[in-house]
Amino acid sequence: MANVTIKILAKELGLSTAAISKALHDSHEISVATKQRVLALAKELNYIPNPYASSLRHRKSNTLAVVLPDVTDSFFSEAINGIESVAIEKDFHVLLYLTHERAQREEAILKEFQSGRVDGILMSISSETTNFDSISGIFSKNMPIVFFDRICEQINTAKIITDDFESSYIATSHLIEQGCEKITFLSNSDSLLITKNRKEGALKACCENGIEKTFLHLMLDCYANKFDYEKMEELLTSEQRPDGIICCIEKFTPNVYTVCRELGLSIPKDIKILSFSNLNAAGILNPSLTTITQPAFEMGKVAATILIKSIQKKSFHLIDETIILPSTLHTRESTRLWIND
Amino acid sequence: MANVTIKILAKELGLSTAAISKALHDSHEISVATKQRVLALAKELNYIPNPYASSLRHRKSNTLAVVLPDVTDSFFSEAINGIESVAIEKDFHVLLYLTHERAQREEAILKEFQSGRVDGILMSISSETTNFDSISGIFSKNMPIVFFDRICEQINTAKIITDDFESSYIATSHLIEQGCEKITFLSNSDSLLITKNRKEGALKACCENGIEKTFLHLMLDCYANKFDYEKMEELLTSEQRPDGIICCIEKFTPNVYTVCRELGLSIPKDIKILSFSNLNAAGILNPSLTTITQPAFEMGKVAATILIKSIQKKSFHLIDETIILPSTLHTRESTRLWIND
Repeated sequence: MANVTIKILAKELGLSTAAISKALHDSHEISVATKQRVLALAKELNYIPNPYASSLRHRKSNTLAVVLPDVTDSFFSEAINGIESVAIEKDFHVLLYLTHERAQREEAILKEFQSGRVDGILMSISSETTNFDSISGIFSKNMPIVFFDRICEQINTAKIITDDFESSYIATSHLIEQGCEKITFLSNSDSLLITKNRKEGALKACCENGIEKTFLHLMLDCYANKFDYEKMEELLTSEQRPDGIICCIEKFTPNVYTVCRELGLSIPKDIKILSFSNLNAAGILNPSLTTITQPAFEMGKVAATILIKSIQKKSFHLIDETIILPSTLHTRESTRLWIND
Repeated sequence: MANVTIKILAKELGLSTAAISKALHDSHEISVATKQRVLALAKELNYIPNPYASSLRHRKSNTLAVVLPDVTDSFFSEAINGIESVAIEKDFHVLLYLTHERAQREEAILKEFQSGRVDGILMSISSETTNFDSISGIFSKNMPIVFFDRICEQINTAKIITDDFESSYIATSHLIEQGCEKITFLSNSDSLLITKNRKEGALKACCENGIEKTFLHLMLDCYANKFDYEKMEELLTSEQRPDGIICCIEKFTPNVYTVCRELGLSIPKDIKILSFSNLNAAGILNPSLTTITQPAFEMGKVAATILIKSIQKKSFHLIDETIILPSTLHTRESTRLWIND
């Protein structure tokens, strides 16, 4: 854009650029009369300070990076809304980076931040990430990072999560109450802490009810919109066919429904399904879907609030704390108790 | 971040910052020996040029702004994926701004770009936007803008849309073939060109079949997750109760399903519903939803490609052209012909 720059102001007024800059910053080195001339012309020509020049001076960009796996997931899109609600209030800009569940891509993205493009990072790690060197490398250079949802335990900073263990325990207990005896936990990772917690919660409920031997953890790839139909079909036609499925991520659900339908399995008669999900349409699915709904908006909001506070207030330091916001179980038709005629 | 700066290099080597900068840029004013000393130390200390210093020099930020109403809408989230796929390839950063359908917010966002924070803008305007002064103001200052989906006709630049008129005409013809005689078009705007085109397409199909007199355009607010249940209920209990509804935006659909259910109206027996939607779960709704699916990813991709090309190639200018990518009608249970027993 052909903006009015300090150079143009300097040329117009026959002053040095340094003098213009000092005048604009109300320096005592510049006379009141000159300041008035500079300000008048700046106003007349609609001079707007270049944000990058300002970033250089203050070493602040007023920009956050949000790094997450997938914007089409309803949890993450709601979390972005929460982050954005704080950013707009605090006059911060939001750079969005998507890892698409790839550790390599995540690493490349983090590398970009070494140069000081952003003041801080809000992050939910990819399902592939097992090496945290890139993250700890940039964190050790005093780049503030706040994790949400998919956190990295190894980094001593603020982490915003939901009660994954408890909500999974409660949801699984519900499945068992509804008659399930063979439960399969479906996830896209065996390394993410969030997945481990959810799995452990489910397993605890199974153990308490003596059905831990039939508990199964099935890992499925979930890149873009691909889904491993074959593996799912294999499970549902095997002798170990579960009578209850917990989808650890929302994206699995439409696919699981479809495979059940194709195999002639009735939900909830033959198999009950519940999902961690923020899907708006959960209540109008066929059958309506029992969900564990995370406080997505709130999690994004809290994460952004803490991060921005740490950027703006020198006295406020990010400490190694985990903030847990509760999820809610919404029981619906997909896990209804089935009484045979 | 406590990065290694030119100042630090200068101090370490007993040189001026200007000399360091020149050495790093391979200036002929600096001796080969000095250049080697500077480069060696820069490498040793892992010096990374500040991107904002680089932006200042080149007047390029390698940053795009994406301005759109709502990230939780599946069309927009898929479009972001398309934009991001190009940005990552071309080494561009993506700033995300959400208008939440508010013209005032959109205006405030655009004001931010006057300062040269971004090299170009990808935009889908809010449902409230009727005054285009802010947009044309910034466009006239040589800020490249490419519109997608919800375009602004008044600005002479590239616009990426789908065949709104035709796809709506085809979908409405389908509704009529399935037996509908009283069709209501549900939208959140009466000013957006996209809405007008879709409405006109629907009306044409009604006219051709002599049912234009019962055609209704109902406007409902759709901010955040609010929905005007009362207005919807009023319509569905009135004498003009439609037997076919076209949802111009996806967000309406779960609400329309819910109101129908509450009023005891059966879909598709009493009322048929179709929606412009990219919802993954459309096929497993109760009943499965007939959709007009836009090429969201492709639209984002094409828009970003053109914008970046215009930024990078001096010989390539954005011209007033409209690129139309086709949508697809997926007929499902919600519009099935109902034959009374």
